Amino acid sequence: MANEIKKVVLAYSGGLDTSIILKWLQTEYGCEVVTFTADLGQGEELEPARKKAEMMGIKDIRIEDLREEFVRDFVFPMFRANALYEGVYLLGTSIARPLIAKRLVEIAEETGADAVAHGATGKGNDQVRFELSAYALNPAIRVIAPWREWDLQSRTRLIDYAEKNQIPVPKDKRGEAPFSVDANLLHTSSEGKVLEDPAEAAPDYVYQRTVDPEQAPDTPELVTIGFEKGDAVSVNGEKLSPAALLTRLNELGGKHGVGRLDLVENRFVGMKSRGVYETPGGTILLVAHRGIESITLDRGAAHLKDDIMPRYAELIYNGFWFSPEREMLQALIDKSQEYVAGEVTIKLYKGSAHLVSRTSPYSLYSEDLVTFEEGTGTYDHHDAEGFIKLNGLRLKTYGARRKRVGGGR
Amino acid sequence: MANEIKKVVLAYSGGLDTSIILKWLQTEYGCEVVTFTADLGQGEELEPARKKAEMMGIKDIRIEDLREEFVRDFVFPMFRANALYEGVYLLGTSIARPLIAKRLVEIAEETGADAVAHGATGKGNDQVRFELSAYALNPAIRVIAPWREWDLQSRTRLIDYAEKNQIPVPKDKRGEAPFSVDANLLHTSSEGKVLEDPAEAAPDYVYQRTVDPEQAPDTPELVTIGFEKGDAVSVNGEKLSPAALLTRLNELGGKHGVGRLDLVENRFVGMKSRGVYETPGGTILLVAHRGIESITLDRGAAHLKDDIMPRYAELIYNGFWFSPEREMLQALIDKSQEYVAGEVTIKLYKGSAHLVSRTSPYSLYSEDLVTFEEGTGTYDHHDAEGFIKLNGLRLKTYGARRKRVGGGR
Amino acid sequence: MANEIKKVVLAYSGGLDTSIILKWLQTEYGCEVVTFTADLGQGEELEPARKKAEMMGIKDIRIEDLREEFVRDFVFPMFRANALYEGVYLLGTSIARPLIAKRLVEIAEETGADAVAHGATGKGNDQVRFELSAYALNPAIRVIAPWREWDLQSRTRLIDYAEKNQIPVPKDKRGEAPFSVDANLLHTSSEGKVLEDPAEAAPDYVYQRTVDPEQAPDTPELVTIGFEKGDAVSVNGEKLSPAALLTRLNELGGKHGVGRLDLVENRFVGMKSRGVYETPGGTILLVAHRGIESITLDRGAAHLKDDIMPRYAELIYNGFWFSPEREMLQALIDKSQEYVAGEVTIKLYKGSAHLVSRTSPYSLYSEDLVTFEEGTGTYDHHDAEGFIKLNGLRLKTYGARRKRVGGGR
Amino acid sequence: MANEIKKVVLAYSGGLDTSIILKWLQTEYGCEVVTFTADLGQGEELEPARKKAEMMGIKDIRIEDLREEFVRDFVFPMFRANALYEGVYLLGTSIARPLIAKRLVEIAEETGADAVAHGATGKGNDQVRFELSAYALNPAIRVIAPWREWDLQSRTRLIDYAEKNQIPVPKDKRGEAPFSVDANLLHTSSEGKVLEDPAEAAPDYVYQRTVDPEQAPDTPELVTIGFEKGDAVSVNGEKLSPAALLTRLNELGGKHGVGRLDLVENRFVGMKSRGVYETPGGTILLVAHRGIESITLDRGAAHLKDDIMPRYAELIYNGFWFSPEREMLQALIDKSQEYVAGEVTIKLYKGSAHLVSRTSPYSLYSEDLVTFEEGTGTYDHHDAEGFIKLNGLRLKTYGARRKRVGGGR
Repeated sequence: MANEIKKVVLAYSGGLDTSIILKWLQTEYGCEVVTFTADLGQGEELEPARKKAEMMGIKDIRIEDLREEFVRDFVFPMFRANALYEGVYLLGTSIARPLIAKRLVEIAEETGADAVAHGATGKGNDQVRFELSAYALNPAIRVIAPWREWDLQSRTRLIDYAEKNQIPVPKDKRGEAPFSVDANLLHTSSEGKVLEDPAEAAPDYVYQRTVDPEQAPDTPELVTIGFEKGDAVSVNGEKLSPAALLTRLNELGGKHGVGRLDLVENRFVGMKSRGVYETPGGTILLVAHRGIESITLDRGAAHLKDDIMPRYAELIYNGFWFSPEREMLQALIDKSQEYVAGEVTIKLYKGSAHLVSRTSPYSLYSEDLVTFEEGTGTYDHHDAEGFIKLNGLRLKTYGARRKRVGGGR
Repeated sequence: MANEIKKVVLAYSGGLDTSIILKWLQTEYGCEVVTFTADLGQGEELEPARKKAEMMGIKDIRIEDLREEFVRDFVFPMFRANALYEGVYLLGTSIARPLIAKRLVEIAEETGADAVAHGATGKGNDQVRFELSAYALNPAIRVIAPWREWDLQSRTRLIDYAEKNQIPVPKDKRGEAPFSVDANLLHTSSEGKVLEDPAEAAPDYVYQRTVDPEQAPDTPELVTIGFEKGDAVSVNGEKLSPAALLTRLNELGGKHGVGRLDLVENRFVGMKSRGVYETPGGTILLVAHRGIESITLDRGAAHLKDDIMPRYAELIYNGFWFSPEREMLQALIDKSQEYVAGEVTIKLYKGSAHLVSRTSPYSLYSEDLVTFEEGTGTYDHHDAEGFIKLNGLRLKTYGARRKRVGGGR
Repeated sequence: MANEIKKVVLAYSGGLDTSIILKWLQTEYGCEVVTFTADLGQGEELEPARKKAEMMGIKDIRIEDLREEFVRDFVFPMFRANALYEGVYLLGTSIARPLIAKRLVEIAEETGADAVAHGATGKGNDQVRFELSAYALNPAIRVIAPWREWDLQSRTRLIDYAEKNQIPVPKDKRGEAPFSVDANLLHTSSEGKVLEDPAEAAPDYVYQRTVDPEQAPDTPELVTIGFEKGDAVSVNGEKLSPAALLTRLNELGGKHGVGRLDLVENRFVGMKSRGVYETPGGTILLVAHRGIESITLDRGAAHLKDDIMPRYAELIYNGFWFSPEREMLQALIDKSQEYVAGEVTIKLYKGSAHLVSRTSPYSLYSEDLVTFEEGTGTYDHHDAEGFIKLNGLRLKTYGARRKRVGGGR
Repeated sequence: MANEIKKVVLAYSGGLDTSIILKWLQTEYGCEVVTFTADLGQGEELEPARKKAEMMGIKDIRIEDLREEFVRDFVFPMFRANALYEGVYLLGTSIARPLIAKRLVEIAEETGADAVAHGATGKGNDQVRFELSAYALNPAIRVIAPWREWDLQSRTRLIDYAEKNQIPVPKDKRGEAPFSVDANLLHTSSEGKVLEDPAEAAPDYVYQRTVDPEQAPDTPELVTIGFEKGDAVSVNGEKLSPAALLTRLNELGGKHGVGRLDLVENRFVGMKSRGVYETPGGTILLVAHRGIESITLDRGAAHLKDDIMPRYAELIYNGFWFSPEREMLQALIDKSQEYVAGEVTIKLYKGSAHLVSRTSPYSLYSEDLVTFEEGTGTYDHHDAEGFIKLNGLRLKTYGARRKRVGGGR
C-alpha cells in the first residue's frame, strides 16, 4: 500500500515530531511531501517551519494565516450554540481540527496528492477528527497516521531516529517534556505526564496563557461586548474582525486569570483523560453570548437550543464537524440567531467573568409585563388560574388514580 | 364558592404579607385558618411567627424544621442531575416549593381542611409550583391564591388594609421595598424594583449571603467534599448530615464570594424576569459533583445525563416535581449514581470555585490506558484505524454523493 | 370589553353551529361580522355558506380555496419530518388550524377588524391552535371563542337559540349527532358520543372516507410515488400539484381501506380523548417518505430526525406551528431533504400499505459495500475489530469495575 | 496470540457454517471447543446439533432452551419501550444477541475457557452485538470471530474447506443460498443475494413465517391481550408464560399475514443494508402495548417515553444492551409501567393488526372530563382562556418584536 502513494500533504508545525514524520514519510513511503503550516493563533512564528522544510528538501511549502477563517467559520458558529462538552469544556482543540483537515484535503486536491498525513497519536481524539473530516470532504483521500504505523512509540527511539536522520533536536526536547501542549486562538490545552494523576493538582507551570488568579489585578475590569446575529462584533465599542476580537478577549481574560479548567473527560476512543485548558476569551464569550440571548431569544427557542446543545457539542468533540447531522443542528441554531444582537457587560476579576448588564434593540424583556405592580393590562392575573388548572389537570387525574389504587408515589 | 371552605392551611411566614393574607382569609372566607411555618434555612426565627399567629387568633399553629428533609429529599436528588435551568440557574427557589406544598397538603389532610393557601403572586412561577404540587398530591384539594383574588395589588392598598385590620406594619415595610427576597438553605434570590432594568448592574446592597468577591479573603481556601452514591456526605473529612453539610458549604462559599448570578430568565407563565441569585454552597456542590462524576461515571451514562438534564431542570423550574415524568427521569439519574463516590477538592477564591483534584475507590480513570507511552497492552493503536474507518464509512458514502451530484456542503 | 369590538372575522363553515355563532356575535357584541370560509378539502360545497351568510346580513363574505397552500406549506413540510403524535397519529386536524388562523388574522388586518372568532369548544385542542397561531401572528388581535363565553352549552339550548333567532335548523341536526366530525384534505376525524367509551369498538358508520378493509378490492394495487427535495411530486409517473397529489392518494387509499386509526390520545388541555381518524393518502405518504429517505438520507441525519420528531409532532399538536422552536426544527428538517428524491412503490391491499421497492438517483445504498461476498476493497473486515474494540473499551473498563467492587449489573 | 487460547466456547447452531468454524478453531487454534446451542425459538431441532458436535469430537456440549428467559428478560423489557429502530424495525435480531453472548461468557467462566467464538460476519451488526456484550460482561474474555480472520470468504472456498475436513455438506448448501436467514421467537429476518437490490420487490419465497396477506383468511379474527405492569400476560383470557404467549401471537399473526417489513436500514458498521423481516407476534404486541398505555399512562410519562425511544432502540440495535445508559433508560421506562395493565382487543385481517378497544382498571381516561356536554364540574371552560393566554404570552411578545423590527417570519 505504502508504495502506491506518490505525494502526501503533511500538517507540519516545524517542531521535532512533525519533522521526524516528514523524514519518515520521505523514507518509508518514498513519496513527495507537501508541507502545510497554518497560523490558527497558536502563538508561534511560522517562518522557522519554512526554513526547516526547505532544509529537508521540500519544494512545495504552504504557510497560511487561517485565524480569521478559524474564528469566523468555526469558533463563532460553535459559540452560537453555547457548546460545552461534558458540561464545562469549550472544545478549543476539537474545533480547530476540521479546518486543518479541510485545508489539507484542498491542498491535496490542488497538488494532485494521494494522501494527507498528520501527527496525532493513536490514543487521542485528534486522529479521529482529522480523519473523519478528511474522509467526509474527499472519500478517495488516503490518510497516513505515522504514530499508528511506526515503531517510534517511545521518546528515546524518536530521538534516535532524529539523530540518525540529521534532524536537529533542540536541547529542551532531548528529555521528556513534562506535559504536551496544543494551542490556537481559542485555547491552550495541556495534558500527559505530570497531569496524568487526577488526584494531583496541576502544577502552576502548566498554565501558559492565563495569569494565576491570585496574581491577577486587584481591581476588576469591565468589558462590553457587542453582538450582531449571534456573533460578537465589538469590544468596548470598537468594531473588530472575528480574530482580532477573540485576540482582544484573550488578552483581557488572560490578564485576569479567566478561563482555566482542570478536567477529566471522556475521549471518543474510549478512555478517560485529564487535561488542563485555558480559554480566556472563549470563557468571556460564552457568558456574554448567554447574556445577550437571555433578553433576545424566545423561551421556546432557548430551551430547544439547550436541549440539543450536548449532542451538538459531542458531535464536534468526536470529530463530526463535517457531518450532515452537525450541519442540520447548525441550521437550527443559526435560525435562532437573527435578533441575538445588543451589548453585554462583563466584570473580570481574579479568575471569574460575571455578567453585569445587557441591553438590546431587540429585547423581549418587558418591564411592564414583569413588574410586581399592576401593569398596563397586558397581563391578567386571573389567566394564571386557568393556566395552572389545565396544566394540573392530568396530574389531578394521575393523583386520583394513585389515591384510588393505593400505590405510593 | 368561598363560603364552602371551612378550614384552610396557610403557608405563613409571619411577615406582613402573609399576615394580611391570614386576616383576609378569616374575613373573606370566614374560615378557620391553620398556619404552617417551615424552617427551610431561610435564616429567620420562627417563634415570632407563632406569636403573631396567636395574636390573630389562630388555634392550630404548625412550625416545623424541614431543613434535613429539604436537602436530603429535594436538593440532593436534584444535584445528582447537575441541574441548571437555562444553562446557569441552580433552581434554589423552585426546589423548595414542592416540599412546602407537600406539607400543606398533608396538614390539610390531617386537620380536615378543605383548602391550602399561599402568598405567591399571580405573575410568578411560585404559584404554579405550589398549586401543581398540591393538585398532584391531593386532586380534591382547593387552593386559595389571595394575590390573584383580592384587589390589594398595590403597596398602598395593602398597608391601608393592614392598618384597618390592626395588623402591625413594621416601619421598614411602610415604604416600598427596593426589591423582594426569597431565601432557603440553598439560595437567596432577589428580584423586582431596582433590579427590573436588566441594563443596570445590580446594586451591591442586593447581595445578602455572599461577600463581594473584592472583599473576600486574599488567600484561597481549599475544601474537600466526600461523596457516596452521588450525594455529598462530608466536608474536609467530617461527616455531616445533609443540612449541616449544605450549611457548611454556604459559610465557605459566602465567605469567598462564591455563587452570585445575575440572570434574565424565562418564567413558565410567559414573561422574562431578572433575578439575582446567591447560591454559595450549591455552586461548590455542582463543581464537586461534576468532578466526582468525571472519574466514576461511564461516558454513556454521563452523556445521557447531560442530554436529559435541561428537561429535568425545566420540569423542576415549571413546578412539575411531583409528576410521573420527573420521577421517571429521577429513576434514570439515580440508577447512575451507585458508584459516584470519592473525594473532590475545590479551591475557593474571590468569587470562584475551581476543581483542583478528585479521587475515588471506584474510579474508571486508567493511567495505564491513557498514557502516551506504550501501555501494558490494553490498548492497541491499530484499533483506532478500524474505529475511524467504520465511523467514517457513512461520511465517505455521503461525501461521494456530494462529489457526484455537485452539491455544495 | 365586548362593546369595544367593532368588527370581527369569523371562521364560518355555513353549518348550524357557526351560523348560531354568527348571530350571537351580531347580537352580543353588536359588531360587524366578516365571514371567512375556506376550502381545505373537507369535501363540502362552499356556495351554501355564502347564501347563508348573505341571508344573515353579512356584507363582507370571503370564500377561498386554500387546498394547494394547505398541502404545499403545511402538510408537506410536516411530512418531511415523518411526524406522528403519540407514535401513530398523523396530525390531520392539528395541521389545518394554523392556516385558518393565519387567514383570519390577515383578513382582520385587511378589513380593519379588531377580532377573530372561531367555533372550537372550550375542551378541545383546536381553540388552543387557533388562538396561539393568531396571537403569534398579530399580538394585538382579540380572539372571541363563543363556546367559552355563552351559556348554550347543551344541544337543546343551542336549538332553542337558533329557533328564536330564525336560523334554519336542518332536520338531521335537531337530534343529537352520534359523533362530531372534522375533515380536510389530509384526514377525517370523528369523536364524541358513540365513541366516548374506549372499550367499545367504533361502529362501522363512523368511517366516511375509507372503505371497510373487508369490502376493499380482493386484488392489491401498486402505486408509485415520486419525490423531489423531500416532497411527493408524482403518482404513477404523473406530475401532480400538491393538492391534486394528495387527492389522488386519498382516492387510492380510501378505496383499499388504508389509513384508519382508533386512538385514545392526550389533549394539550389535559384530558384523554378517543378519536377515530381516517388518513388514507397521508398513511401512504408516510410509508413512501420513510422509504425514499431510507436510501437517500445519511444515518446521522436520519437518526437526528427520528430523535426530534416526537417533539416536532407535539409542537404541532399543541398549536405551536407559528413558534420559533417549530421553525428552528423545520430548518433542521428541511436541511436534510435536498437529496430525498426518487421513487417508491407501495402495495395497497385490504387496509394496509406496504413498501415494495425504492430507487433514487441519489441513493446512498451500495450493493458493493453490503454484499456478503468480498467486495471491491471499499470495506476491510479487519476494520470491524478495531471498531468494536474501541466502542467496547469503556464497557470493558466499566465491567472491570463491576467485577472488582462486586456489584450486580 | 492464537496459541495462547486453550479453550473456547462456540455459539454453535449445528449448521454447515458453524461446523466449519468448529473445525477451524480446532485446527487453527488447536484448542478445546465447548459448543453452545440455544433454543431461542428459531424453530429448529437441537438434537442434530448435539450429534454433529459429538461427531466432531466435542466433549462439552451445551444445549439450552432459553425461550422463556429470552422473552421475559429481553423481548418484554424492550417492548415496554415501544422500541422501533428507524421508525419501523422491531429489533428481532438485535435483542437476541446479548442473551447468547451472556450465556457464552457465563459458560466460559464455568468451564475456564479463555475465549468465546461466534459465526457472525465482518460486515454485519451481529459481530458488534456479540462482542460488546461479551466485553461488558467479562472484560478479560477473548473473542474469536473467524469470519474476520480466515480466508474462507467465498462460498466455494468454504465448501472446499468442509470437504477437505470431512464435514458433511447438505445438498442444498452446495450452491449459493439465495438469501440468508436469522430466526428466533420474535422474528425471522432475511437478507442478502436476491434481496440486495432495493429497487426489486422481495420474492414471495423469502417469507417463511407469515402467510401472504392475499392468502390469509377472508374473515378477520379478534384477539384480546391482557397486560400487567407493562407486560403481556394473557391471550383471549388465557394466562400464558412469556414464551408461550409470544408463540401464540406468532401463530395468530402468521396466519393473518401480519408483521412483514421490507426495509433498507443503516447498520452500525456504516453501510445501508436491505432486509425483510417477519415479526407477526411482535407487531401485534406493539399495537397492543401502545393501546393499553394510551389509557393508563399519563401524558408526561408517555411523551417522555416517546422522546427517548429512538435512542433506546438505537442502543439495542448497535449492541449496547449491556451498557449503563441502556440500563438507565430501562429504569426510566420500567418506572412508568406499574399501572400499564388491562386488556386490548386487536383485529387481525389480511396483513394488518388494528386496535379495536381497550379497557383497564387503572384507566386515566375520563368520559366525564372529555364529554362535549357540560360535565360534573371537574372542568371549567374558562380555564382554557387563561391557559391559552399564558401559553401565548411569549409568542405575543415575540410576534410584537417581529412586527416592530419588520422581519419576516
